[in-house]
Amino acid sequence: MDPRLQYPVTVETPDPLFARQLQQAIGGIEGEIRVCLQYFFQAWGARGPNTKYRDMLLHTATEEIGHIEMLATAVALNLENAPLSLQESSAAASPVVNAVMGGERPKHVVEGMLQKHLLSTGLAAFPGNSDGLPFDCSHIYASGNLAADMYSNIAAESTGRLLAVRLYNAAKDPGMKDMLSFLIARDTMHQNQWHAVVEELGGLQGALPIPNSFDQSLEKQEFSYAYIGSAKDGTSPPEGRWTQGPSIDGKGTFSAVQNVPLGQVPVLGPAREGSGAQVEQIGKSASGMTEI
Amino acid sequence: MDPRLQYPVTVETPDPLFARQLQQAIGGIEGEIRVCLQYFFQAWGARGPNTKYRDMLLHTATEEIGHIEMLATAVALNLENAPLSLQESSAAASPVVNAVMGGERPKHVVEGMLQKHLLSTGLAAFPGNSDGLPFDCSHIYASGNLAADMYSNIAAESTGRLLAVRLYNAAKDPGMKDMLSFLIARDTMHQNQWHAVVEELGGLQGALPIPNSFDQSLEKQEFSYAYIGSAKDGTSPPEGRWTQGPSIDGKGTFSAVQNVPLGQVPVLGPAREGSGAQVEQIGKSASGMTEI
Amino acid sequence: MDPRLQYPVTVETPDPLFARQLQQAIGGIEGEIRVCLQYFFQAWGARGPNTKYRDMLLHTATEEIGHIEMLATAVALNLENAPLSLQESSAAASPVVNAVMGGERPKHVVEGMLQKHLLSTGLAAFPGNSDGLPFDCSHIYASGNLAADMYSNIAAESTGRLLAVRLYNAAKDPGMKDMLSFLIARDTMHQNQWHAVVEELGGLQGALPIPNSFDQSLEKQEFSYAYIGSAKDGTSPPEGRWTQGPSIDGKGTFSAVQNVPLGQVPVLGPAREGSGAQVEQIGKSASGMTEI
Amino acid sequence: MDPRLQYPVTVETPDPLFARQLQQAIGGIEGEIRVCLQYFFQAWGARGPNTKYRDMLLHTATEEIGHIEMLATAVALNLENAPLSLQESSAAASPVVNAVMGGERPKHVVEGMLQKHLLSTGLAAFPGNSDGLPFDCSHIYASGNLAADMYSNIAAESTGRLLAVRLYNAAKDPGMKDMLSFLIARDTMHQNQWHAVVEELGGLQGALPIPNSFDQSLEKQEFSYAYIGSAKDGTSPPEGRWTQGPSIDGKGTFSAVQNVPLGQVPVLGPAREGSGAQVEQIGKSASGMTEI
Amino acid sequence: MDPRLQYPVTVETPDPLFARQLQQAIGGIEGEIRVCLQYFFQAWGARGPNTKYRDMLLHTATEEIGHIEMLATAVALNLENAPLSLQESSAAASPVVNAVMGGERPKHVVEGMLQKHLLSTGLAAFPGNSDGLPFDCSHIYASGNLAADMYSNIAAESTGRLLAVRLYNAAKDPGMKDMLSFLIARDTMHQNQWHAVVEELGGLQGALPIPNSFDQSLEKQEFSYAYIGSAKDGTSPPEGRWTQGPSIDGKGTFSAVQNVPLGQVPVLGPAREGSGAQVEQIGKSASGMTEI
Amino acid sequence: MDPRLQYPVTVETPDPLFARQLQQAIGGIEGEIRVCLQYFFQAWGARGPNTKYRDMLLHTATEEIGHIEMLATAVALNLENAPLSLQESSAAASPVVNAVMGGERPKHVVEGMLQKHLLSTGLAAFPGNSDGLPFDCSHIYASGNLAADMYSNIAAESTGRLLAVRLYNAAKDPGMKDMLSFLIARDTMHQNQWHAVVEELGGLQGALPIPNSFDQSLEKQEFSYAYIGSAKDGTSPPEGRWTQGPSIDGKGTFSAVQNVPLGQVPVLGPAREGSGAQVEQIGKSASGMTEI
Repeated sequence: MDPRLQYPVTVETPDPLFARQLQQAIGGIEGEIRVCLQYFFQAWGARGPNTKYRDMLLHTATEEIGHIEMLATAVALNLENAPLSLQESSAAASPVVNAVMGGERPKHVVEGMLQKHLLSTGLAAFPGNSDGLPFDCSHIYASGNLAADMYSNIAAESTGRLLAVRLYNAAKDPGMKDMLSFLIARDTMHQNQWHAVVEELGGLQGALPIPNSFDQSLEKQEFSYAYIGSAKDGTSPPEGRWTQGPSIDGKGTFSAVQNVPLGQVPVLGPAREGSGAQVEQIGKSASGMTEI
Repeated sequence: MDPRLQYPVTVETPDPLFARQLQQAIGGIEGEIRVCLQYFFQAWGARGPNTKYRDMLLHTATEEIGHIEMLATAVALNLENAPLSLQESSAAASPVVNAVMGGERPKHVVEGMLQKHLLSTGLAAFPGNSDGLPFDCSHIYASGNLAADMYSNIAAESTGRLLAVRLYNAAKDPGMKDMLSFLIARDTMHQNQWHAVVEELGGLQGALPIPNSFDQSLEKQEFSYAYIGSAKDGTSPPEGRWTQGPSIDGKGTFSAVQNVPLGQVPVLGPAREGSGAQVEQIGKSASGMTEI
Repeated sequence: MDPRLQYPVTVETPDPLFARQLQQAIGGIEGEIRVCLQYFFQAWGARGPNTKYRDMLLHTATEEIGHIEMLATAVALNLENAPLSLQESSAAASPVVNAVMGGERPKHVVEGMLQKHLLSTGLAAFPGNSDGLPFDCSHIYASGNLAADMYSNIAAESTGRLLAVRLYNAAKDPGMKDMLSFLIARDTMHQNQWHAVVEELGGLQGALPIPNSFDQSLEKQEFSYAYIGSAKDGTSPPEGRWTQGPSIDGKGTFSAVQNVPLGQVPVLGPAREGSGAQVEQIGKSASGMTEI
Repeated sequence: MDPRLQYPVTVETPDPLFARQLQQAIGGIEGEIRVCLQYFFQAWGARGPNTKYRDMLLHTATEEIGHIEMLATAVALNLENAPLSLQESSAAASPVVNAVMGGERPKHVVEGMLQKHLLSTGLAAFPGNSDGLPFDCSHIYASGNLAADMYSNIAAESTGRLLAVRLYNAAKDPGMKDMLSFLIARDTMHQNQWHAVVEELGGLQGALPIPNSFDQSLEKQEFSYAYIGSAKDGTSPPEGRWTQGPSIDGKGTFSAVQNVPLGQVPVLGPAREGSGAQVEQIGKSASGMTEI
Repeated sequence: MDPRLQYPVTVETPDPLFARQLQQAIGGIEGEIRVCLQYFFQAWGARGPNTKYRDMLLHTATEEIGHIEMLATAVALNLENAPLSLQESSAAASPVVNAVMGGERPKHVVEGMLQKHLLSTGLAAFPGNSDGLPFDCSHIYASGNLAADMYSNIAAESTGRLLAVRLYNAAKDPGMKDMLSFLIARDTMHQNQWHAVVEELGGLQGALPIPNSFDQSLEKQEFSYAYIGSAKDGTSPPEGRWTQGPSIDGKGTFSAVQNVPLGQVPVLGPAREGSGAQVEQIGKSASGMTEI
Repeated sequence: MDPRLQYPVTVETPDPLFARQLQQAIGGIEGEIRVCLQYFFQAWGARGPNTKYRDMLLHTATEEIGHIEMLATAVALNLENAPLSLQESSAAASPVVNAVMGGERPKHVVEGMLQKHLLSTGLAAFPGNSDGLPFDCSHIYASGNLAADMYSNIAAESTGRLLAVRLYNAAKDPGMKDMLSFLIARDTMHQNQWHAVVEELGGLQGALPIPNSFDQSLEKQEFSYAYIGSAKDGTSPPEGRWTQGPSIDGKGTFSAVQNVPLGQVPVLGPAREGSGAQVEQIGKSASGMTEI
């Protein structure tokens, strides 16, 4: 534990709406709690004598705690002086104040704030997103398969950097832009980092299809590399890299086919007596006799 | 709408525990509702005059409806004759019956069932997972960035095929193994398909870092390709492809550094009067005077 | 507040699996917390000078508190002597005990229990369902439209009585069967009660389509009473009361038609600069020039 | 799969607040994802040789996919040109712009938007409601009882049409009003359609009480048709159709009675040793002796 | 059931934003549904012959129903005349109206409202919080341990009074301030009430550590009263009452120590064949031979 | 980051049901993720120049990460050799094996496992509870009021130690008992620690009622120290410390009173035209005339 932040966090002009937007980077599904816990749980479940990936994950998970801290600090700083009531809010938005501030003052007041910031946290961050939804740990993907986990991580860091870029574009305060330029750089690294693990695992041809421990002769291979279209009028589906050439995993050839149902019309057995169905579903009429 | 299934679904020996396990493939986060809705929402939000990716996504989303239908049918077939009460269950598990069946008969009875199958659905499937949790649409990733979406899709199909393989390994019934061998093959295709789109978008070097529309000169580039270790004793972090050589996106060089906090010890302003803090946090004592 | 239960609750042979099943009637979506809060919120939001429906709802909401209490008591009684560990559980399931009890003793032990009963509640009920999911108040339907609310109530009491019947069929203990026979009777009444309100509101022809305050000349009436089929091979959809004869609301005539898309192929504008899309979606290449 | 929309969707004046409101019709509990999946799961679980209801449900479920698509398109069109930052937003709301636009231009800017539209979807729809809550599939009601399901459907379409009417009243754009007038008409049909199934199933007298397969002689019939009041001062509950006359199911006569607790004061056994209670609850004092 | 409110609820100037804020006191985690159900479930699970605590809890739970009713009424009154559309909203906010109303009229219009109030409830309360999140009954803490429950109740009433104070500070309407001054007083009582139970249970020294039925000689007592610091640079943690003097429970002496890992580097077994891992995790290469 | 565990974690006899039970201590509402994030967010939002409490919270939050790691490791170790299918499970439970193992071998096999351990995590821990529910961060209580937070922490550590004791009692493996005896000791400390902060803040008389920054003359003080009973028959509520003597906060005197409704019968205005109500609620008949 070190009391200092990983990178400086400063706010010149507090803005409660930006505090709200930053919450997405804390507790949104693209946010830092998600990647932090995801890397921890992947590490803690890593099996086998080679602990290299476990250690690598632990270092990066630890780094992510620092990112949550930076963002939580930024939220609190943006909530300094946020209006505690509509009256404060209206006063702050008065034309006179506006004129003095040159129209640059944040105007989104009580209405635009997350009410949770005002009513539940006392002007501080919470582990939820920019629309007030608490983070839900079902978004922690740790599958027990190293390659699948790497793609979950790439997906997380892709949406994470995307979010950070959107926040950068929405930000006006120079301190916030600076903080976000650091977080964007770290997401650049992390996107690269997880791809680097895939490369170590043999790249696309070695790792795919995931899991690579399943004997492909057991799958219905005539369907393994076919793009299936289902246009009602029978026209061909759109062509692309996925309809021709060798498959990306190097183990087949792409093709395009039109969907044809191969299965039966499913017929389930009648409802059972005692299962709570209507009598008609059991094959009786209400008077107990006739089959439908 | 076609009443036939996409692929045959048959069950020789109904098994209510396997019905439970199959739910994960319907309404788990690795399941088919997720990919179905994910591809639909990615398609419906696809922007720009070139509708090729929109169409491709719609075809595959449509295919996934058929997968949900197959699995829902499989769940219902595995619940045929499931015990409606503990008494039925105990009778079924009696030693005599066991002996006759050669010990191969499914024994997991009422205790092992999802109670929801018995009490809420009348022995049919529902849109939730194998521990009874309903599917939550926050898992539909559609970000507005095509490359980020592709990696969300690759992650989904990686965990999806992983789940299908685990179900295949857990299954005993030949009809279920056959159905799963088809679904595994389709997941093979879909993993390849989304990677093929990335290839069309310029591959790793063209698409990364995601989003590629952000000017990298605006990020703190000294941190863009550095693996940060944080060992308490200062030892170096584990080496790997991510600590040396050109970065995967071709735009930098990997390095490894030790974490050093660069920021300040954060000090927030005192709590405001009227914000509901204790008086001590506002900088008063309870008697209204002394600062802490 | 009256300390007595609304109806006697007794358990001869405690059964921790039945405790688990009863939870569905407390905190399942078909359960008593739902109807209790639903009727309260409908009452508290009832508008207008005539408070008759408000009062009626309050009386029934109050009754439902008593039902939750009965069920919570039943859960606690069924958890008396539940095993606190696997060792206790195994001992209880030993052949000797089984023989003495004539094979009729509840055998589902620690494995079949809701772990929450053991670990979180200390052998008592909680406001969640039989698979451990907490009740979520989004299931409280109170729409501000009296007729819509009545149908939400009918739906709730239909699934509620269905659940109570399934529990009755699953139960063995005579005290539990007696308690459930009371709750089933009350659900019979409540199904009838809400239908009676619809009758007062003019019946199907007066109340439908809900809301009846919308001028139907403003809806696209050529689609108001047509059953739309979408068979891929163009065959007609299944015939029934919904394809012919006067509509149930008495304001039109049913027909059956084949689906024909009437709208355009949707084309959204390109992604905007600054919105975080890939450059290709903005209509540039990565080098900034070519449109896709 | 057909790339055309079921009905035209056009937006003259994009309005990001209306985009927000439309989300309720996509991913709210009254929305289209709910009915779509509800009809699919009811169909996939339909038991018995007569597949008529299964097929009817599949056709309507398929239709609902088209409704989601229309609404998702409408959301994206309403988000065209939505402000990406507060600065854009303030500029758009400047008095000069206002004057030019005649005061009719949508003014709700960044503050009024769902932040998710800006930060997570890139100006497109998502499967959640107008306050940002993701759709939760516990709202898919498919009970295994056909009549109960019909009332769940009637409830869904009643709140669905109610929502569509509210959106129609809130809308200003002629394209949006036109789209909603179509959806309102379809909800009119679907309300009628599910009532038509009830009529086929014998109407209220044949279908009620649901499930009609439970022998009513097993319920405590003295409580089956009695409205129970619980006024603290003993005054009679409000009279209505539910306190007199034949019951709606034709199987009893309504009456009104005052609530009288019939059960015991419940007394649970003491807490068990090892169950984690305080010593006083186990019937000891902290020093191990005295009963409380 | 008594149709009168527990305390008068009046609103002079309806304010839809304040309606939104009040929702937190209904369905927020600090709100009244939570304490109401919490006290009920604690009562219904209370074990042992002494029913005193059960009864006390039931009385207070009953009181809380009245609080929900007051707040739901207040929400509905604050939503009287709320704008149903943006046009209504803009008209209401016009400068002329503003001038007439002396700038005191609530200006937060459609944008600031909870859309749920407009679209789903018809201008009435619902069981969710001020950001639209439905109440989730996992927040009902009823542990089976009386002392633990008292601290859950103290926590609930502490955040509850805190919320009521924040609402009081944010309120302008005299009727709302009056209503809140009553609720604040009741929270004062309830904070005191649960502390009084702890005092009856022996106070801090009798009740702690909770549960007091566990033999402390079985815990690793060298860690039972030590504050553990983990400063990276080895500096001592902050001193306070928790680092010195007798422990609060009177059973030990506080100290401060520096964290030292006492355990091993964890090494899990390799992934099993058939568990879906990559081949490298199982200890094979993709070609089936080399250990990693 | 230190790769060693805080305390040794060993498992002699892996037991997949115990793995399931341990999940409650990781991702249950009484578990370690909750306290870890709760202390972090309280620290990150701590306001004012005195950073002592912020630092103290950070140290303890850091300690809790180590607890999650211990438990996650324990889960993975208990899942070693868990059956991957029913066949494996049945073989393991055969009488012969049972006899050899002396009946002491864990018998709860596939049926008793969390399916998530098998299907989603590959035999490792996840951030959810023992019934499979993911942890939901709405349980992170950080209110901005230091004293309220301390009571949330006391409540968390009370239920936390209660859970650890129940797990200790349920455990058989000596390694698990040893690990739990350490965690129980730490919970003893943390209960004491948060009480010590309250003592520093002036104890019950200084800190209560929370928040102590609200002027009590503004609350309706005649209700501030009265226990309100609501027995239907008017009998007095149960007496206790809460009905007599000085209040715990030293600012009043307890009394007991009988509940009397003080408010009006609430009458809301009629539903508005355009709000989607039935015509009868607006005060018209369906034909547009009669008031109800």
